[in-house]
Amino acid sequence: MEETFVPFRGIKNDLKGRLMCYKQDWSGGFRAGFRILAPTTYIFFASAIPVISFGEQLERNTEGVLTAVQTLASTALCGIIHSIIGGQPLLILGVAEPTVIMYTFLFNFAKERPDLGRNLFLAWSGWICVWTALLLFLLAILGACSIINRFTRVAGELFGLLIAMLFMQQAIKGLVEEFRIPQRENKNLTEFIPSWRFANGMFALVLSFGLLITALRSRKARSWRYGSGWLRSLIADYGVPLMVLVWTAVSYIPTSSVPKGIPRRLFSPNPWSPGAYDNWTVIKDMLDVPVLYIIGALIPATMIAVLYYFDHSVASQLAQQQEFNLRKPSSYHYDLLLLGFLTLLCGLIGIPPANGVIPQSPMHTKSLATLKHQLLRNRLVTTARRSMRQNASLGQLYGNMQEAYRQMQTPLIYQEPSTRELKELKESTIQAATSMGHMDAPVDETVFDIEKEIDDLLPVEVKEQRVSNLLQAIMVGGCVAAMPFLKMIPTSVLWGYFAFMAIESLPGNQFWERILLLFTAPSRRYKVLEEYHATFVETVPFKTIATFTIFQTTYLLICFGLTWVPIAGLMFPLMIMLLVPVRQYFLPKFFKGPHLQDLDAAEYEEAPALPFNLATEGQLGAGASYIDGGEILDEVITRSRVGK
Amino acid sequence: MEETFVPFRGIKNDLKGRLMCYKQDWSGGFRAGFRILAPTTYIFFASAIPVISFGEQLERNTEGVLTAVQTLASTALCGIIHSIIGGQPLLILGVAEPTVIMYTFLFNFAKERPDLGRNLFLAWSGWICVWTALLLFLLAILGACSIINRFTRVAGELFGLLIAMLFMQQAIKGLVEEFRIPQRENKNLTEFIPSWRFANGMFALVLSFGLLITALRSRKARSWRYGSGWLRSLIADYGVPLMVLVWTAVSYIPTSSVPKGIPRRLFSPNPWSPGAYDNWTVIKDMLDVPVLYIIGALIPATMIAVLYYFDHSVASQLAQQQEFNLRKPSSYHYDLLLLGFLTLLCGLIGIPPANGVIPQSPMHTKSLATLKHQLLRNRLVTTARRSMRQNASLGQLYGNMQEAYRQMQTPLIYQEPSTRELKELKESTIQAATSMGHMDAPVDETVFDIEKEIDDLLPVEVKEQRVSNLLQAIMVGGCVAAMPFLKMIPTSVLWGYFAFMAIESLPGNQFWERILLLFTAPSRRYKVLEEYHATFVETVPFKTIATFTIFQTTYLLICFGLTWVPIAGLMFPLMIMLLVPVRQYFLPKFFKGPHLQDLDAAEYEEAPALPFNLATEGQLGAGASYIDGGEILDEVITRSRVGK
Repeated sequence: MEETFVPFRGIKNDLKGRLMCYKQDWSGGFRAGFRILAPTTYIFFASAIPVISFGEQLERNTEGVLTAVQTLASTALCGIIHSIIGGQPLLILGVAEPTVIMYTFLFNFAKERPDLGRNLFLAWSGWICVWTALLLFLLAILGACSIINRFTRVAGELFGLLIAMLFMQQAIKGLVEEFRIPQRENKNLTEFIPSWRFANGMFALVLSFGLLITALRSRKARSWRYGSGWLRSLIADYGVPLMVLVWTAVSYIPTSSVPKGIPRRLFSPNPWSPGAYDNWTVIKDMLDVPVLYIIGALIPATMIAVLYYFDHSVASQLAQQQEFNLRKPSSYHYDLLLLGFLTLLCGLIGIPPANGVIPQSPMHTKSLATLKHQLLRNRLVTTARRSMRQNASLGQLYGNMQEAYRQMQTPLIYQEPSTRELKELKESTIQAATSMGHMDAPVDETVFDIEKEIDDLLPVEVKEQRVSNLLQAIMVGGCVAAMPFLKMIPTSVLWGYFAFMAIESLPGNQFWERILLLFTAPSRRYKVLEEYHATFVETVPFKTIATFTIFQTTYLLICFGLTWVPIAGLMFPLMIMLLVPVRQYFLPKFFKGPHLQDLDAAEYEEAPALPFNLATEGQLGAGASYIDGGEILDEVITRSRVGK
Repeated sequence: MEETFVPFRGIKNDLKGRLMCYKQDWSGGFRAGFRILAPTTYIFFASAIPVISFGEQLERNTEGVLTAVQTLASTALCGIIHSIIGGQPLLILGVAEPTVIMYTFLFNFAKERPDLGRNLFLAWSGWICVWTALLLFLLAILGACSIINRFTRVAGELFGLLIAMLFMQQAIKGLVEEFRIPQRENKNLTEFIPSWRFANGMFALVLSFGLLITALRSRKARSWRYGSGWLRSLIADYGVPLMVLVWTAVSYIPTSSVPKGIPRRLFSPNPWSPGAYDNWTVIKDMLDVPVLYIIGALIPATMIAVLYYFDHSVASQLAQQQEFNLRKPSSYHYDLLLLGFLTLLCGLIGIPPANGVIPQSPMHTKSLATLKHQLLRNRLVTTARRSMRQNASLGQLYGNMQEAYRQMQTPLIYQEPSTRELKELKESTIQAATSMGHMDAPVDETVFDIEKEIDDLLPVEVKEQRVSNLLQAIMVGGCVAAMPFLKMIPTSVLWGYFAFMAIESLPGNQFWERILLLFTAPSRRYKVLEEYHATFVETVPFKTIATFTIFQTTYLLICFGLTWVPIAGLMFPLMIMLLVPVRQYFLPKFFKGPHLQDLDAAEYEEAPALPFNLATEGQLGAGASYIDGGEILDEVITRSRVGK
C-alpha cells in the first residue's frame, strides 16, 4: 500500500475500489445459495458466545448498568451497518475484551466521583465515545492506516496469540470458578453446599472438555473415513453449533437428581425486563456531565482510539492475509472512518462500542475459503464427469474444466480479464497422459481420478461477499430476543467454547508454529516444512529461528503480564504497537536481512511500495497457491506454500 | 499343522521343537537388557488390573470366599510355572471373566445345598478342577489341538471382539455404578448422600475418560513431533502405567474438600488379614464332599474343559499369528497338558484356575515386536553410521548392514542357516545409487537417509523369549504384597483402563476392520486397503464382504446376548466353537471359494497340510512382510501385507 498522508486520499481510494465490486459483493453471496449458511452459523456462534460472556462479565463489573443485552445489541447493530456499508465485508465486528476492561475501569472511576456517580457513568462514557470518534476520524482522514504494511507478521501474530491466551485464560478461570460460590449469588442455596459445589465443578469439567474435544473433532469431519460425503460435510460445517446444542442437552440429563442451579447456566436479564432499556436514552443526560469531565474524557478516549486503530487494522489485516489470495481490495482508511461513526452512535445510545475482532475475523475468511473450495470443486467434478460421459479426450476435458473454472471467477470491472488458469492440472495430467500414449483417446477414471486430481489442483480462493457477515450480525441481534433460550446454555459449555476458539485460532499462525518447532526433535523438523510449507525452516539457521522466537515469546509474555496489572493493563495495545518500530529499527541490528525477510517479510524492506491495483495483480499472479487435498482444507487453508 | 490323533504324538512334537530353542528363550531375553522392562510393564498392567477387578467381582459374588488375593495368586503362580516350563512363552495366563462367571454360578449352586453349603464350596470346586484336569489331559494326549487350523480367523477374531465387548461393557457398567450406592456398603455414610454420589459419578467420568484418552495418546508417542527421541520412546513404552499413576495422583487432589470415600477406590482384604488364608488348606476338606457331588462335578468340569480348550488355544493362536513372522514353533498340545496340571494345582489349593487370556496374549506379542524392531533398528543405524564414517561405498554399506542383520537373527539349531536378507534394501538403495552414478563412491546422508531407510525396510519380527512373561508373572505375584498401594487406585481409573484394553485390542482384527468398512464412504474404501494392507478389499466384491461381515456380526451379537442369560451364559464358548463346522460346511455353500479364502483363509481348503518344520520355513520365506515406517509400528504391526 502506498504510504500517503494526503488527507482523504486513502478514504477516496478505498471507496473507489470497493464501490466497483459492491454489486458483486451481494450477487456473489446470493449465488452461493443455502451453502452460505455454513460459514454464517459458524461465525455467528464464534461471535455471539464471547459477546454474551463479556456481557455477563460487564454486568458483574458495572453493577448491572451494562449487560449482555447491550453487548449483543452493539455487536448486532455495528455488524449490520458494517456489513452493508463497510469496506471490508470479511471483517467481523464485536464488543471485545479490551473494551470490557476499559469500561470496567471507567465505571470504577466514575462511581467514586460524587459529581458523576453511577447515574452519569453512561453519559460520561458517551462523551468518551464522542472524543474517540473524533480521533478516529482524524486518523482515518490523515491516512494513518497507510502505515499498515509496517504491521508485519511479527506484530499481528503476536497479537493473535495474545488474544488466544486471553481466551484460554478465560476458559480456565471460568472452570475454576465453577468450583466456587459465585459472588452475586445467595451463599445459602442448596447448590452451594460443599458437596453440590464439588459436583457442579466436576460436571463442568465433563461438559467443557466434552464440548472442546467433540467440537475440535467435528471440524475435521471432512477427512473422516466414515459416513457419506454429505453427512461429513454437514458435521464439518455445523458441528460446532451442533455440539453446543448436544452438550446443553446433556446438561439436562441429570435434572431429576440435582438441584436447579446445577450445572450453572448463563445469567442475563431478558431485554423486556423492567429497566433493561434505561440506557438507551443516555443522550439527554450528556449535558449534565460537568465540563471538567467532558474535557477529561479526552484522556481515556485517546487510549481507546489507539486501541481501536490497532485492533481494527490488525483484524482487517489478518482477515485479508496474502495466503488467502483475495481478489477484492482492502479498505483500511474508510473502515476506520466508519468505525468512528459507529463508536459515536454506540456512545450516544449508551452501549459499549464494537470493533474488528480476532480470532473471529480470520476464522470468517477461512470458513469462506472452505465454502469457495466446495463450490469450485462441485462445479469442476460435474464438468469432468460430463466430459467423460461424452468420451472427451484429455485435451477436451482440460479445456472444459478450464472454461468452467473461468466462469466461476468473479468478474471484477476494474481488473483485466483474469489470467488464472488451472495450470498445474494441464501440466501434470497431460504429462501423465502423454507418457501413457493416449492424449487423444477418451479419458476414463484410471487416467484421471476426478475427485483426487481436482482436490490437488484447486488454488485457495475465498468467497468474498457481504451476505454471511450481514446474516451473522442479524442472528446476533436475534439473540437478544432469544435470551430465554440462550440462558439454557451451561456456563461450562461456554468455557469449553472459549478454549475451542483459542485452539482454532492457532493453525496458520507462524509464530505459534515456530514455538512448536522449538520443541520438535531435530530429526523431525523437516516435517514442519512439509506440513506448513514453512520455507523459513529451510532457509534460516535453526539457531536464528530459535533466537527470534524466544525474543517474540518474551515480548508476548510481557504483554500478557501487562493485562494483569489493574490499570496499566490498558496499555497493552501500546506495547504491541511498539513492536512496529522495534521490528523496523531494532531487529535488523541483530538479525541478517535475508533471515529477517524469511521470518517476517516487510514490504518496506523488500521493494518500493506499488500502487494498489498493481500490487493486487502481482499478488494474484505469483501467489496463487495450491493446496494439498481438499479434505484437509480446514487445516491447510492458511498454510499455503507462499512462505511470506 | 498335521492332523494326527495318535496319542502323545502332538505333545512329543511340541516338546521336541521347543526344547531345541529353550536355551535361546532365556539367553535371547537376557541379551535384550533393560529394554525388556517395557513390554514387561505394559503386560503386567494389562494382566494385573483385570485380575484385581475380577477378584473384586468374585468377592461380591462369593460372599468373600474368594478375593483379589486369590485371583492374583493364581495368575502369578500359573504365569510363573507356564513361563518357565510352558511351551509357548508368548502366551499370557490369567484368571479370566468366564472363570469368574463359572465360579459365581457354582457358588450360588453350592450355597443352597445343605450337604455342601458355603463351607464345602471350595472343596467341591476342587473336585471340579480334578475332573477338568483329567479331561484336559485326555484332550492333550489325543491330539485335540491338531484341529487348531480349523479355527480360522472368523472364529478367533469373533472371540477377540466378544472379549473386547465384554471389557467395554464392564467399563460402562462400572461407570454407571459410580453414580449408585454400592451394595455391600453402609448406605448412611456421608459419601452416599445424593450430592456426594453425583459428585463421585462426575469425578469418575473425569478420571476414567482422562485415563482412556491420555493412555491412547501415549501409545502413539513414537510418532509425536515433539520432544526428543528417548522421551518419546519412554512415553510410548511406559505411558500407560504412568497414566494410571498420574490419574491416581489426580484423584488425591481434592482430598481436603471431599469425604474419604470419594472417589471410590479398589476394595480388597490385605493378604495378611485374618482369614485371608483359609482357602489354602482346602485339600483336607475334599473327602468331606458327598460322593454324588464328586461325580456330579463332572458336568461343570466338562464345560470348563471345553471352555479352556478353546480359550487357551485361541489365545495361543492369536499370540502367534502368521503376520508376526515367528521363528519358533508353537506348542498347543503340550501347553494344554500343562494347563491340565495347573488347573489341578489351583483346584487343590482352593484358588480359581488361570488360562490363556485375550487380549493380553496378542498384546504381549505386539509389544515384543516393537521391542525387536527397536533393537534391530539401533543396531543397523549404528552399523550404517560407522560405515559412513569409514567412507564405505554403498556396496560395502549394504554388506555391513546385511552382516549385522544376520548376526541379530536367532540361531536355531534345527533350522538351516537363515536366508533372510534385507532384500528390498539392496534393491531399492542400489538402484537409487546406480541411477545417480556413484555405486562405488563413499555414501553420505543425501544418498542414504539412514533412519528413514532402515525404518522402511525392517521386517516385522518378534523378540521371542521367556523373560518378559516370567517377570510380569512375578510382578503380578508382587501385587499381593503391594495390596495397600493398589488400593489407592480409584475404581474409575480401572474402568478407563478396561475401555483402553478393549480399544487396544481392535487394530489388527480384520473382522473389526470389515465392520468399519461397512460404514466407510465408497470413495474412501481404497484407504482401508492402504492402511491395513487388506487385500480382500481389492479381490472380493463389496457386497460379498458386506454379507459376510453382517453374518459374522449377527453371530457375534448372539454370542454377546448369550452372556447375559444367567446360566446358559456359560454356553457361549460352545457357540463360538460351533463356528468351526459352520465355517467348514455351511459358509462354502453361500460364498464363492476364492472369496471365502480371501476373507478367511483356511489351510484345509488351500492345500494339503505340510509337516510342521517345512510349513514354518515356507512361512518364513514367503511371509516376511515389511512395514511402513517404524514410528507407526504400534499401529501397523499386525496389519502387514500378508493378507491371510
